[in-house]
Amino acid sequence: MYSFGSLQEIVNSEINCLDLNKTPDELYGPVRYALSAGGKRIRPVLLLLACNMFSEDISKAIRPSLGLEIFHNFTLLHDDIMDNASLRRNQPTVHTKYNTDIALLSGDAMMIMAYSYFFDCEENILPEVLKTFNQTALQICEGQQYDMNFESRDDVTIDEYLYMIELKTSVLIGSALKLGAIIGGAGDKDTQLLYDTGKNIGLGFQLQDDYLDVYGDVKVFGKSIGGDIVSNKKTYLLIKALELAKGKTYNHLTNMLKKDEFVPEEKISAVRSVYDELDIMDHTREQISEYFNSALRLMEQISVKEERKDELLKLIKKLLVRVY
Amino acid sequence: MYSFGSLQEIVNSEINCLDLNKTPDELYGPVRYALSAGGKRIRPVLLLLACNMFSEDISKAIRPSLGLEIFHNFTLLHDDIMDNASLRRNQPTVHTKYNTDIALLSGDAMMIMAYSYFFDCEENILPEVLKTFNQTALQICEGQQYDMNFESRDDVTIDEYLYMIELKTSVLIGSALKLGAIIGGAGDKDTQLLYDTGKNIGLGFQLQDDYLDVYGDVKVFGKSIGGDIVSNKKTYLLIKALELAKGKTYNHLTNMLKKDEFVPEEKISAVRSVYDELDIMDHTREQISEYFNSALRLMEQISVKEERKDELLKLIKKLLVRVY
Repeated sequence: MYSFGSLQEIVNSEINCLDLNKTPDELYGPVRYALSAGGKRIRPVLLLLACNMFSEDISKAIRPSLGLEIFHNFTLLHDDIMDNASLRRNQPTVHTKYNTDIALLSGDAMMIMAYSYFFDCEENILPEVLKTFNQTALQICEGQQYDMNFESRDDVTIDEYLYMIELKTSVLIGSALKLGAIIGGAGDKDTQLLYDTGKNIGLGFQLQDDYLDVYGDVKVFGKSIGGDIVSNKKTYLLIKALELAKGKTYNHLTNMLKKDEFVPEEKISAVRSVYDELDIMDHTREQISEYFNSALRLMEQISVKEERKDELLKLIKKLLVRVY
Repeated sequence: MYSFGSLQEIVNSEINCLDLNKTPDELYGPVRYALSAGGKRIRPVLLLLACNMFSEDISKAIRPSLGLEIFHNFTLLHDDIMDNASLRRNQPTVHTKYNTDIALLSGDAMMIMAYSYFFDCEENILPEVLKTFNQTALQICEGQQYDMNFESRDDVTIDEYLYMIELKTSVLIGSALKLGAIIGGAGDKDTQLLYDTGKNIGLGFQLQDDYLDVYGDVKVFGKSIGGDIVSNKKTYLLIKALELAKGKTYNHLTNMLKKDEFVPEEKISAVRSVYDELDIMDHTREQISEYFNSALRLMEQISVKEERKDELLKLIKKLLVRVY
């Protein structure tokens, strides 16, 4: 069995070997830049881990795993344009370093390139691989649109929020595991179990991101704390707080959200006090645990020997530990 | 044999039946809007015509033809953002009617949707269909990037320009015919002949567009004359004129291009005078005829009965007549 680390190395070395020195350089330069910025390569590694669960030979899963990573980076590139984000992984975003037209077009090129990495799958699985990837890609667009819609709404419910992150984040994690399973030769039931496992990991992971913005350790988390609070981002924590707050607390919280001028540190600390009053930390941890426990229960039902699940189980547990 | 008109009707009625009433409406509304704006549906009709050349049954070519039309409209949508175009087919462009973020994202969704229309092709041709479509899609991005690069360059050569429009416009016309041929069961040689035929049609067609902006009849052409001249657009005519002009004429022409303030009608008429002096009309007509004649010569070599070529030949001749 391959370890997470060894698969990460394989993915990184494959990405370094991609033939991206093509013309026009204004199109392919940004693609090289976006793909070389790093990241944890979680999606391609999950695809390879799932394949390895059913097959010793992961070579036929390599290209699809790269397609998934290229696709993921395309979504980041276009999302950064829509979100006006100037930094990604501590480097200027593509539209900041180049310009918006170039970022738009090189994003399109990345999406097109991503598809080509799935075409070499064996004929008997090609249609299912393509349909899985394609449906996921469209769902991610839907999720991004809901996310943008939520910005101008004050009445987003927890269910709506969970549906949005399911589309925007977790179907891709689900599909990574599902595609690996299909390519590795898993049966329909195990394939579906892995898809659902991935969806739960994705939901838990996104809620963790929300959680760590408020309760994370700057040194471990790597980005500054409270950014979501400063920008009124509709996270699980804020939506839950708006749902639970009553009377004076509710008014206090909504007034803080309305203020145009404030000292960031003061707003962060005031909103955290409201969160503390409403036990938002525990509510969020509970929800995260639920998703990770669901993932573990689904994993139990997969019909391979326990030792073949070890690497994925280790990963899930490692992800969960980020919160505690 | 189906006529061009009857295939156009089939495509339009299929597009009207697409299930695009999905949520979020902010994502799918713009897709409906873009696809309902009309247009001549040339690419899907060419795909169906090519299929019909080899097979009475065109049903299996319908979905791929829709995929091609959806893809084409995706490129228009994103190009309009990059070109800051406010009108398309006399209606507000998507980013003007909605906003840039929505246009960007619904364009992404259209590209993803386009792919799904190819997945049902029979297993034995699916990989070739996908590779043909995918390579073309990437070439179109390259063409668009070259087009943007040319805006800030004064030394674009005719060869560079022709290579740009080959990528941006004509490979898609070539692929429409090639995909129809593959789906219709044509052999490799006929498939390649149709691809090259389409590329020549596409090149001729784009030069015609350039030509008609200067020498077209407003009533027939449907858009105002001289727009390319006013905006200094690097068309075949302008690049050829810059190549042929010497001494006083060259200085006169380049001075006109540099002027920031001018009366549009005066600039159009002055640039036309330079074009007349340099015989640009005849040069352009000659080049267009060359492309259309190449297309006709390639058609002759296709190994089906002459009557099966009739509809495509009629179309090529009809397209050519636009100039004269």
